[in-house]
Amino acid sequence: MTRTKSRQIVLAARPHGAATPDNFRLEEIELPALGRNEILLATRYLSLDPYMRGRMEARKSYSPPTAIGGVMEGEVIAEVTMSNNPAFDVGTLLLARSGWCSHAISNGSGLVKLDGRFKPVTTALGVLGMPGLTAYAGLFDIGKPKPGDTVVVAAASGPVGSLVGQLARMKGARAIGIAGGAAKCAFAKKELRFDGVIDHRSPDFADQLAAACPNGIDVYFELVGGKVWQAVLPLLNDHARIPICGLVAQYDKSAASYELAPTMREILSRSLNVRGFIYREFADQRSEFIDNVSRWIDEGHIRFREDIIQGLENAPEAFIGMLSGRNFGKLIVAVS
Amino acid sequence: MTRTKSRQIVLAARPHGAATPDNFRLEEIELPALGRNEILLATRYLSLDPYMRGRMEARKSYSPPTAIGGVMEGEVIAEVTMSNNPAFDVGTLLLARSGWCSHAISNGSGLVKLDGRFKPVTTALGVLGMPGLTAYAGLFDIGKPKPGDTVVVAAASGPVGSLVGQLARMKGARAIGIAGGAAKCAFAKKELRFDGVIDHRSPDFADQLAAACPNGIDVYFELVGGKVWQAVLPLLNDHARIPICGLVAQYDKSAASYELAPTMREILSRSLNVRGFIYREFADQRSEFIDNVSRWIDEGHIRFREDIIQGLENAPEAFIGMLSGRNFGKLIVAVS
Repeated sequence: MTRTKSRQIVLAARPHGAATPDNFRLEEIELPALGRNEILLATRYLSLDPYMRGRMEARKSYSPPTAIGGVMEGEVIAEVTMSNNPAFDVGTLLLARSGWCSHAISNGSGLVKLDGRFKPVTTALGVLGMPGLTAYAGLFDIGKPKPGDTVVVAAASGPVGSLVGQLARMKGARAIGIAGGAAKCAFAKKELRFDGVIDHRSPDFADQLAAACPNGIDVYFELVGGKVWQAVLPLLNDHARIPICGLVAQYDKSAASYELAPTMREILSRSLNVRGFIYREFADQRSEFIDNVSRWIDEGHIRFREDIIQGLENAPEAFIGMLSGRNFGKLIVAVS
Repeated sequence: MTRTKSRQIVLAARPHGAATPDNFRLEEIELPALGRNEILLATRYLSLDPYMRGRMEARKSYSPPTAIGGVMEGEVIAEVTMSNNPAFDVGTLLLARSGWCSHAISNGSGLVKLDGRFKPVTTALGVLGMPGLTAYAGLFDIGKPKPGDTVVVAAASGPVGSLVGQLARMKGARAIGIAGGAAKCAFAKKELRFDGVIDHRSPDFADQLAAACPNGIDVYFELVGGKVWQAVLPLLNDHARIPICGLVAQYDKSAASYELAPTMREILSRSLNVRGFIYREFADQRSEFIDNVSRWIDEGHIRFREDIIQGLENAPEAFIGMLSGRNFGKLIVAVS
């Protein structure tokens, strides 16, 4: 019997400062034969997400780090191509956490079948997936925008930021987006219908943000940290809510630059609510979230953009680019 | 007609660093005659609270600063001694915000009559007053202790900390208190029945705190900031809640020492909820709070301690002492 070969990208070395191509290595391995109840998964799409940068560090974050030589972790859309498990027919598309690889063997646990709500199927990794639920639960459960509130989010053309802005507007809030470069700003303004969009590359970025928020900021949905946070902090209103689900601008920096923070006195004197969270905390909302957002997409309230690159071997470069904002929309690798 | 004289303590100068007696001045003024609908209030008890330190600064916090030469602000229990207002009989005891003075004229607005639930009446300034509501709403609405959680609070013998610890225990949580000196620690342990009490003056304070919290900290009710916060931060569990209603240890310090803060990365990686608040936000719970806590006092579940000093002229020294922890229980000035 022929053994299936899997190409996989492993963590070759931990980054010092910015991640580089040397941190990754492409390998080919031979998978064992399928055992009882096992299925073979062929990866169709691999999701690339900023949180993966954290797993490359030795330090424990909310999940343990990836081992040196270990396959890079990640969520994929896979197709069942062989099955010894009656619960999974060949041809079934599902979500799996098999990582940066072309093929994997699973016993079926933790797999989520994809139904007709995912149009196209790649939305299961983006607007209807982990980034979408992050935006939905973080904004509604922590941000709690009220009509007339000003909601600010960075990475406004990305999978989380774009949904945060559109959901905020559906709640009657003003959505101010931050993005890098003219193309992303134009997309956020025209396609995503943000009320205002600021280019963080502008020399007077902080002044522009202040001008766009004449009534201050009621919700700052924190994805990036760094200079954006520094510009936001003075504009936060009393009782502002700050859901934090990422700090992309800081991931590639040394520990010292993580020290940017609101002071305890600022949190006290303005009754701020600063709240870190991971989408998993809101897993029980997943079904409601997919129902609602897929319907809102059908109805034209929610738009999204995907940035699909071809070939597993190109994943490291695309991932490195994403950390400095070179992607335009949800970054996905098509794995043939 | 004889005019009523009022003794009052005014802000003579803003503090540079620690507050000193020179920052205050005792004056005597002659009040105008009572106008239509006005009443004369004779202060019986003046509450001294750490937030007053903030009003002495020029910087706006959540309330505007006291002007130089202005009467120090504060809440008092006053007795109506003359009345041109049919809604207020002579002899009525009520809560007023007339400040550090012996007498004041009011048109009745904002006054709160005291009923039989306040036994003794001074509880209206402490366990059944602003400090009590701060503890009650901050712990229940933000801290949300669950059975088995570890709840840590400093100033454990003070009006907020003592109630936080006892309420946490009523919810089935473990209450760990922090206090300064053997007498306060013994009181918190024996009278208030904290599960553990640490003396923040111990050289190995941080180690003792870690040993008292073998399962980490789920709720840290922040009143003091400074070195206590630094010792707490490494012990915070994932999803810990940190209500912040005061930073007493930092009030007398320079701006630089306000910079102690959790980093955004710590808030993110441990899904912390860091939430500043002022009791006024929870004003709609006041009636329920007084009903419940007064009943729990009657039933023996809640104990409290008041530190009553005599004479308005002694208020500045008592206030200065409170900022370095020299009071023992809720600090109140009896104003004859």
